[in-house]
Amino acid sequence: MLSKSQISFVKSLHQKKYRLENGLFIIEGIKSINEFILSKYKIHSIYATPEQLPFLISKPANIKLFEVNHIELEKISVLQNPQGILALVYIPQNDDFSSDCLLNNFSLVLDGVQDPGNLGTIIRTADWFGLKNVICSPHTVEVYNPKTVQATMGSLCRVNVFYTDLEKLLTSVKVPVFGALLDGQDIYTVDFKNQGIILLGNEGNGISEGLKNKISTAVTIPKFGQAESLNVAVSAAIFCSELVRK
Amino acid sequence: MLSKSQISFVKSLHQKKYRLENGLFIIEGIKSINEFILSKYKIHSIYATPEQLPFLISKPANIKLFEVNHIELEKISVLQNPQGILALVYIPQNDDFSSDCLLNNFSLVLDGVQDPGNLGTIIRTADWFGLKNVICSPHTVEVYNPKTVQATMGSLCRVNVFYTDLEKLLTSVKVPVFGALLDGQDIYTVDFKNQGIILLGNEGNGISEGLKNKISTAVTIPKFGQAESLNVAVSAAIFCSELVRK
Repeated sequence: MLSKSQISFVKSLHQKKYRLENGLFIIEGIKSINEFILSKYKIHSIYATPEQLPFLISKPANIKLFEVNHIELEKISVLQNPQGILALVYIPQNDDFSSDCLLNNFSLVLDGVQDPGNLGTIIRTADWFGLKNVICSPHTVEVYNPKTVQATMGSLCRVNVFYTDLEKLLTSVKVPVFGALLDGQDIYTVDFKNQGIILLGNEGNGISEGLKNKISTAVTIPKFGQAESLNVAVSAAIFCSELVRK
Repeated sequence: MLSKSQISFVKSLHQKKYRLENGLFIIEGIKSINEFILSKYKIHSIYATPEQLPFLISKPANIKLFEVNHIELEKISVLQNPQGILALVYIPQNDDFSSDCLLNNFSLVLDGVQDPGNLGTIIRTADWFGLKNVICSPHTVEVYNPKTVQATMGSLCRVNVFYTDLEKLLTSVKVPVFGALLDGQDIYTVDFKNQGIILLGNEGNGISEGLKNKISTAVTIPKFGQAESLNVAVSAAIFCSELVRK
């Protein structure tokens, strides 16, 4: 049985302000929670219905575990159809970003992606294709937004997500910068070689002007129909697919 | 100035039941509305703020046009940030589906996609890559769901979307059926030739058992990392990309 103040504490974490204030975010569903338990993330507490409890792979030490009923879970859940188990996870202090992680592999760099679902899908796609790092401009949507976390389908615990000043980063970076633009080289003919950054822009405005001159190769997914643009998560996926294909 | 009953009529169309009952759906934003005016769709009525009115390319005959203020528009809009103009469009009677449209090109066939955003993104992606038809099982999410319409970004007026019994369709179809499965042929080595169906399954359960034996070639997007699966709109996009590349 949860107290009113426990319920309102978890509910407060639906909002960014309180996530940052408390250094905690919400994950839901047994599969995600088991993956996070096995990851580098630290779990703060778990709220489980009796039906879901047996499926927990382990209860690490120092984690508070609350057995809750469905009505309580509905109150604290972010989902329309709660999955019977929810956990609070500590937000890691990722001041350990070094641009060395960009060497000898490919990273996705996001300039102001706004939709939480898009960011989550991009992280999930990066994980499928074996990309380790997603680097975001400070004005990109918060990765601990519940919709983002949900859309990653657990991939958040395997892909590193950093926020940093992209102008600084791209000025000093030692790998090629491939920018997704509408008037670049046909992606199917680009030689990505063995390292680089894939730079993707905001849903409405694309890559900001200040970053365009940091691009070493402008790359375009050729259009055969009439849509004005592609969804940014779709573009990211086609870039990832082309990277691994070559 | 809208009457209370006008406001509640438009608001009722946020729900599937009333969309079907009235044969109408909602589109928003000047760009989409102008595209629909020029398309084969028939517009029922337009609700515009004075700021957006001048951007309408034309007001076809027999369309009711209402000038509204921002407060009224907020009441009838589906969006969190209304775009100043909204229109009601007649749902077409697409009993004109013939499997002949599957010949000599590629079509996306969706077996129970549930997320409205995914369906919309798939339609937008099909439009980018020049695919004309998206065919859905009856239990696929409704295409006139406002979230779907919004995610198509206007592509709904160029891509044909049909709902039909997939078991019947795939039994009689004269083109190859490429099914997105986890244990198929590497997509980068598949020869799609010049026609076929790309069959994609439900977000959680994939392609249903009853349809799996209709697949002529099982196709897999190879995994290089650890995510369990790809988002269905992302899979659709990578299939489209491979079709055009070859």
